[in-house]
Amino acid sequence: MRNFEVYETKERVLADNDAAAAEVRSSLEKKKVFLVNLMSSPGAGKTTTLLRTIAALKDTYRIGVMEADVDSDVDARTIADTGVRVIQLHTGGSCHMDADMTKRGLDEMGTDGLDVIFLENVGNLVCPAECDVGAAKRVMILSVPEGDDKPLKYPLMFSVSDVMLINKIDVAPVFDFNFELAEKRAKELNPEIQVFPLSSLKGDGFDAWIAWLKNSIEEWRKQV
Amino acid sequence: MRNFEVYETKERVLADNDAAAAEVRSSLEKKKVFLVNLMSSPGAGKTTTLLRTIAALKDTYRIGVMEADVDSDVDARTIADTGVRVIQLHTGGSCHMDADMTKRGLDEMGTDGLDVIFLENVGNLVCPAECDVGAAKRVMILSVPEGDDKPLKYPLMFSVSDVMLINKIDVAPVFDFNFELAEKRAKELNPEIQVFPLSSLKGDGFDAWIAWLKNSIEEWRKQV
Repeated sequence: MRNFEVYETKERVLADNDAAAAEVRSSLEKKKVFLVNLMSSPGAGKTTTLLRTIAALKDTYRIGVMEADVDSDVDARTIADTGVRVIQLHTGGSCHMDADMTKRGLDEMGTDGLDVIFLENVGNLVCPAECDVGAAKRVMILSVPEGDDKPLKYPLMFSVSDVMLINKIDVAPVFDFNFELAEKRAKELNPEIQVFPLSSLKGDGFDAWIAWLKNSIEEWRKQV
Repeated sequence: MRNFEVYETKERVLADNDAAAAEVRSSLEKKKVFLVNLMSSPGAGKTTTLLRTIAALKDTYRIGVMEADVDSDVDARTIADTGVRVIQLHTGGSCHMDADMTKRGLDEMGTDGLDVIFLENVGNLVCPAECDVGAAKRVMILSVPEGDDKPLKYPLMFSVSDVMLINKIDVAPVFDFNFELAEKRAKELNPEIQVFPLSSLKGDGFDAWIAWLKNSIEEWRKQV
């Protein structure tokens, strides 16, 4: 018989995180605040996507943004220019946001008077996928320059996301990216995933994503 | 007084890793095997860069490649077609290679009869930067579509790397990427970093990187 506790660090951390995420989710449902966890590789276009999404939604909803980065506040400055409420979260070297960090970020920013909050996660296709932060929806961006093989290499991200935005379609002519194949590979992992090819820089394809997002917010508000 | 041990997981893990990395490095120096740790975001062009680098070096050196991925073996298949020795490492969900995983990969592949080994790390700008694997040189790729602001957001990667390859210069005309600014930002973090803009797909700029690499291998061989 063991006379000591065996502490399975990673499993325990993830179990603790799931409990914290459930608390965040339940608390936001009570307040009717819709949280989106936005994830992608570095440079796939999270901030540009947010800017255009905010522009499309801000007459309908009161929006807040939490910008998570290992360092710097360049994205928070950019978002602040839109006039929405924004907070910069530094993850202290951590490569992803967890539920407890999200809760502290929400407490610090304040959720009163907000309808929709976007969490721009750290640019990383691996670790953020493992960590439920308590969001209503998980949205990931795959950008055309990254290649259509990413679902094969980073399967968890595509498995856990509600939406895959295929961004930077405006530069598709100079890349060898197979849209059908990317969608097929993502749907093999996650048949329910919604796929929207778009250009956050130019605006092409954006309407379908915004329509889906508005509809999701409204459906969610009826249920909570 | 405490009657139990306090185990600082992360610090202990990193201290253990440094010791393991020192062992890997010392063992490879004895065998005169030059190990390159190749790191980048997903889709920045690690495999394409490796293919062209192998083509340029394989008449001079006997080359091995370790392909690290969370899942899949697509890159190992591509590399195997070049005829060099290659092994696929699955990281079991881990978002980066550590020194112990590298040691086990080297043991499994075998280093006898090799002069140069490339470790293609997991696509990630955060975690691989924290983990010394015992390589002679650390090489990171920033691709043009990711943007020139990445040194601000992921500073550690730029701080610990010996080389920054700025890849995909062939598509620079369709992106708003400031080469001087990217280099300035990287050098503010790491004045010694070598910067080579190139296109691994088309070959532009590749000669300077290959010349630097060959020279580094020869200098290293004289010292060890």
